[in-house]
Order: sequence, then structure tokens, then C-alpha cells
Amino acid sequence: MKKFLMAALATTVMTAAVQASAQVSPEDQIKFRKAGYSFMSWNMGKIKAQVIDGSVEYNQQQILAAANAIAAIGSSGMGALYGPGTDRDVGSQTTRVKPELFENFPDVAQLSGDFVEAANNLVAQAESGDQAAIRTAFGRLGETCKSCHDKYRKD
Amino acid sequence: MKKFLMAALATTVMTAAVQASAQVSPEDQIKFRKAGYSFMSWNMGKIKAQVIDGSVEYNQQQILAAANAIAAIGSSGMGALYGPGTDRDVGSQTTRVKPELFENFPDVAQLSGDFVEAANNLVAQAESGDQAAIRTAFGRLGETCKSCHDKYRKD
Repeated sequence: MKKFLMAALATTVMTAAVQASAQVSPEDQIKFRKAGYSFMSWNMGKIKAQVIDGSVEYNQQQILAAANAIAAIGSSGMGALYGPGTDRDVGSQTTRVKPELFENFPDVAQLSGDFVEAANNLVAQAESGDQAAIRTAFGRLGETCKSCHDKYRKD
Repeated sequence: MKKFLMAALATTVMTAAVQASAQVSPEDQIKFRKAGYSFMSWNMGKIKAQVIDGSVEYNQQQILAAANAIAAIGSSGMGALYGPGTDRDVGSQTTRVKPELFENFPDVAQLSGDFVEAANNLVAQAESGDQAAIRTAFGRLGETCKSCHDKYRKD
């Protein structure tokens, strides 16, 4: 059943990608997906500074806002930004994506689902305000980022 | 009272900006804020294609996901990305911001508040699924974007 769901999700990702490619140029698809990851990384950094490094004073509302941004970006259908022709640098846009990503959509859908689940969990923990739980949820989210980077992003 | 609130909000924006400047370089502040606007523009484009142009079939869940991303990014404390030294190009990062923005934080806070309110309203209308209401809410959101661009963004 899970395998079926993943295959269905992968089909959705690919359908969305094809649909998007009719709307957004490959160059802009790369630009937008990099923007999404970049903005998420700023928000990851804010949470890290508060609950891991302690270099910025803990502020629950800021953590929650950051978690919400990460979860909403992650749930916005970024699969549509991996359309045909986006597996290499295009125009002014460089990409670190490995070609293998485009040959493994079911696996990418699984990793993407893990990421969204971990991001939603971080939102829930941020709402609770339990700092230890936020720290654990943040670590878990970071692991789901790394799982995909290790497989499908060039160094 | 409203004036007081706006002044307080502006102070928050500036405090956050100063705090952020200790954490994130001016170059990265520009990079991250441009990433946020870029990712929002992709999501605005998706909604426009579905409810204004009609070039992509209407899909309530996609509209809601896009609206959520816009609202969450807009509520993530981007004021912190307008710290000292970010009023001009820095390193590899160019910016279209006008210097006037840095002299008018209370007005910027007001415009930013209008934007967040309109984005949250779009989320609410997307949840309702009423296409006419979504169209109106989308138009109102676009106006709040334009209000700030007209004043504080170079052509």
C-alpha cells in the first residue's frame, strides 16, 4: 500500500512538473526552487541560533514563524520546479542537483514526504513551546534535509 | 493608538534588524530577502494562472498551499533582513531597494502589516474554496505588494 502511495505521489510530482514546465521556464524553475531552499535555510538558521547554539535569545513566536515558513514552503508543490530541462545549469541559473534525482522520483517523493512530516512536527512542537521537544524536532527535520542532499545534491 | 502600534511595530522591525545583523551578513540578508520575494512571486504566479488567466485548471489545494507559503513567508520576520548596510549592493548581491525604505520604518511596518493581513485573508478565502472570493482576495494582496514596490523599490 505504501509503495502504491509513493508511486502515486511520484506520478503527481511528475504531472505537476510537466504542467509547470508549460508555465515556468526551466531557468525560472531552478531560480524559484533555489529561492525556496535559500529562504528555508535562513529560517533553519534562526531556529538553530535559538535552540541549539543559544547565540540568540529563545523566542517562541519567532521559532513558530520560522517553522511555519519552512513547512509552508515545503508543502507548496516544489516538485513542479523539477521539470524537464532543469537537470543542469540553464542561462544564468546554476544548479547542484544530481541527474539521479530525475531518475528516482518515487524515492524523491518519499524523502520529500519525510521532510514535510518533520516540518509539520516542528510546527506542532513550536506551538507547544517545549524547548526540548523543539530541539528534537529540529534535529529530525535537519536529518530529512540531509537525506536528500546526500543522495541528490552535488557537494 | 494605531500610530503607537505602528511605532512599536517599527521598533520591533528595527530591533530585529539589528539582532539579525549580528547573525547574518548584509550580503546574506539581501540574498535571503530576495529569495523570499522570489518564492512568493512563484506562488502568486500559480494563483494568477488558475483564477485570473485560467491558463491552468483551478485546484483548491494548490491555491491554498500557495497562499499558505505567501502568508508564512510574509509573517516570518523579513524586517530582520533590512539591517544596516543592506541599503545598497553588497558583494555578489544586488538590491533594488530604495534608500528611502530605511528612513521610513513606521510606514514600511504599516505596508508590511497590510500585506500580511491580505495574505491571511487569501488563505481564509482559499480554505472556503469560493473562487470569486479568492479572486478578490488575490487582487487585494497584489495591491499591497504594489504599494510597497511603488514607494520603496527601484524600477
